[in-house]
Amino acid sequence: MRPEPGSVAEADYADRRTTAERVRLSADTPDSRVTPTAEVSGWLAAYGRAHHFRAEPIPFAGLRRWYFEPGTGDLRHETGRFFSIEGLRTSSDADPVERVQPIIVQPEVGLLGILAREFDGVLHFLMQAKPEPGNVNGLQLSPTVQATRSNFDEVHHGRATPFLGHFIQHPGRRVLVDAIQSEQADWFLHKRNRNMVVEIDADVPADDSFRWLTLGQIRGLLRLDDLVNMDTRSVLACLPTAHAAPACPGDGFGAALRRSFYGDPAPRHDLHAVTSCLTDVQALRVLRQQSVPLERAYEDGWRRDEHAIRHRGGQGFEIMAVEVTAERREVAAWTQPLLRPCSQGLAALAVRRIGGVLHALVAARSDVGTLNVAEFGPTVQHRSAGSGATAVPYLDYVRACGPDRIRYDAVQSEEGGRFYHARTRYLVIEAGPELPVDCPPGFRWATFGQLTELLAHGHYLNVELRTLIACAHAAY
Amino acid sequence: MRPEPGSVAEADYADRRTTAERVRLSADTPDSRVTPTAEVSGWLAAYGRAHHFRAEPIPFAGLRRWYFEPGTGDLRHETGRFFSIEGLRTSSDADPVERVQPIIVQPEVGLLGILAREFDGVLHFLMQAKPEPGNVNGLQLSPTVQATRSNFDEVHHGRATPFLGHFIQHPGRRVLVDAIQSEQADWFLHKRNRNMVVEIDADVPADDSFRWLTLGQIRGLLRLDDLVNMDTRSVLACLPTAHAAPACPGDGFGAALRRSFYGDPAPRHDLHAVTSCLTDVQALRVLRQQSVPLERAYEDGWRRDEHAIRHRGGQGFEIMAVEVTAERREVAAWTQPLLRPCSQGLAALAVRRIGGVLHALVAARSDVGTLNVAEFGPTVQHRSAGSGATAVPYLDYVRACGPDRIRYDAVQSEEGGRFYHARTRYLVIEAGPELPVDCPPGFRWATFGQLTELLAHGHYLNVELRTLIACAHAAY
Repeated sequence: MRPEPGSVAEADYADRRTTAERVRLSADTPDSRVTPTAEVSGWLAAYGRAHHFRAEPIPFAGLRRWYFEPGTGDLRHETGRFFSIEGLRTSSDADPVERVQPIIVQPEVGLLGILAREFDGVLHFLMQAKPEPGNVNGLQLSPTVQATRSNFDEVHHGRATPFLGHFIQHPGRRVLVDAIQSEQADWFLHKRNRNMVVEIDADVPADDSFRWLTLGQIRGLLRLDDLVNMDTRSVLACLPTAHAAPACPGDGFGAALRRSFYGDPAPRHDLHAVTSCLTDVQALRVLRQQSVPLERAYEDGWRRDEHAIRHRGGQGFEIMAVEVTAERREVAAWTQPLLRPCSQGLAALAVRRIGGVLHALVAARSDVGTLNVAEFGPTVQHRSAGSGATAVPYLDYVRACGPDRIRYDAVQSEEGGRFYHARTRYLVIEAGPELPVDCPPGFRWATFGQLTELLAHGHYLNVELRTLIACAHAAY
Repeated sequence: MRPEPGSVAEADYADRRTTAERVRLSADTPDSRVTPTAEVSGWLAAYGRAHHFRAEPIPFAGLRRWYFEPGTGDLRHETGRFFSIEGLRTSSDADPVERVQPIIVQPEVGLLGILAREFDGVLHFLMQAKPEPGNVNGLQLSPTVQATRSNFDEVHHGRATPFLGHFIQHPGRRVLVDAIQSEQADWFLHKRNRNMVVEIDADVPADDSFRWLTLGQIRGLLRLDDLVNMDTRSVLACLPTAHAAPACPGDGFGAALRRSFYGDPAPRHDLHAVTSCLTDVQALRVLRQQSVPLERAYEDGWRRDEHAIRHRGGQGFEIMAVEVTAERREVAAWTQPLLRPCSQGLAALAVRRIGGVLHALVAARSDVGTLNVAEFGPTVQHRSAGSGATAVPYLDYVRACGPDRIRYDAVQSEEGGRFYHARTRYLVIEAGPELPVDCPPGFRWATFGQLTELLAHGHYLNVELRTLIACAHAAY
């Protein structure tokens, strides 16, 4: 299916196979002349010191330009922009009792874009050191561009977010990744962001907040806690991987992992049998969602005081507000609401070798805010217990795994522009025959190559699983 | 990617390539020993006479077990089953004025299933002659099974819809098609049905309402008006087509069409460049949807009298009620609401040869009830004008086309269980260089093979475009 020479397709879209091979080369390049690995931590530390950034919790009364809307109690910005906190009423066939909870509503699709360029024949990615108010540690490694739809309109008016023009309204762009993906569906209603990687071949002016890194370098940084931000993990997970790559000899974990990304030998199930597992759940599970005024949540166990909206039973999270002082953002100081989870999350992916190829056990998962009933998530995805929590399959198994089984283990931050100190422990665990190849309904063994193939389409893999795909590349 | 012998994948899923080849053989078989073509019309006529079915418009007061809910005005069934008529408030970036309209709400995913079986080495499909209250002509050719989720639960209790068990809760099933697809998004809110084809190799008892037909036979019947129902068209459109099939020599329309389905030579754009066109629209267009009480519609130009809920400006459709008398349904007589469009629709697909391969011009289309902002639809999809309608791209072009350009032209019925006398004229029109290969934003030339490939996933092609894919197979 290679497009004709000179066709729009060739100009607009890079050949996928070639892209995958170039991605692999970049991943196999652990250092770079452009940005030596040894200098990255010094750059981040110096940049962080020079660009002081503070976020202090404040009472709701301290919010400027945000208000609780009369009649609904929804928390909104006076311009109608950014996001709002509203109520969501849900029920399901598994739990027909209707519940109302606060939820973040941001119906417009934002952009997470990474610029790519070859240096010395190797793809590099333009990463940005960016602070967000909810980060535990100030700045993290972000995509080249994180933009909301309001930023798009500014492109017309010449006050554009840097580099945004490369991603939108740019017919000659060379697209390596382009898919609309979901985000935390237990905290957001139907939230989506467009994940893009666009390749350029000319110089671009980039200030000291930017650095060109190879995929090998970024994957090395993924082994550290709280450094590669959620948006970066999501976009990088979508990069295509080669099929039928050079044979990967060896019987170690690394070789089985590479065979899993490269699709050779064949996966246990064909791709349609993988998606069929999700289709089963989407067709048979019933998820009812209705937007309601936030005030309705106060009739269902939630209450609002000066400082927070929280559930009396400890329902996993609360809504709070912060005052942010930044030296280098669109505006120097602002206030905003954030969602604060009450505890650290756990997202674990069990993997095992089947026919010498690593397979990951994914689970069809519904959350209150899922757009289309269910998406695939990790084997275990679990936030704070809350009262009356039902048993989580494989949770005890994951908790009992010794360190000899753990191939990846780091705590990563979720999006610091919406969440306050939201951290999740991400684990890749190598299982053996104690996890049988035949698994319960709603679970399926798939190769990393298959999961990556599904990432060319939206709404197959949730954001936690996308993080684990990115992390699995860094597993060993 | 052929699964290992004996694996779950092999038991559960037919090999796609082989399936596509067997589908092609069935399509190339215009008659059958099992059900001779010459006997089909006689069977339908005799069956129609023997199974009398009447649907008479009645005032809302004549509805039994349906009621207007106090407080909201929503029209609901007393069991909470089937569907309801509620209000939907929408706005978009193109039209920021908020509008409220009635909409059909049916959040559960139903099943449209066709059984397939080989006779004399050729796949046959088990079609059902089925009347629906909204049909203009009583019975039409329907899938083996049309089931709601309530029917699924009855499988547990032994009162199953015939053949339903072959599609759900049947681990050994051999699946040829399985995807959740949308339906009319201007009349339904987020409506989805699971489209399935499952192959069996044993005899099944089927009464006189069923007949085994080849795909060639069904496609022949697609040339007639109002005979192959919407659900059948949708499911059959999803059948895979062979890639790299035997070369199709010749420079006629038929050869260009076959090359288009078989993907050889290469399409103008690669598949990612096709989906990217839709992603652009999904990311940049803003579609706000909010469920509201139906009563709110009465503040926005709609009104309800004894017989109908209609817009004073003639907004395309009205809600009415019928009394149905059937000799052969789950119950012998019932009443129900239906949606009646005020005029016949038009759905036209412009096709042209590019490099000897037929390409279809598809349009990223948003309707008020679209689940994920936009899906691909036909070049032109147009229902009644209404007042203040904006110009529809390519509508004048399509209307001006002479008969020498028309490759397919038939009026087909939309789903008679929800719509009353809803008919759409479906056209496939062969264009020339007057429609350039470079097209406006939101439009893209794609081959039928590419469109069929996207049908393995849900929510890429809307139901009108799926009908046109099915019809294109019957074009000449």
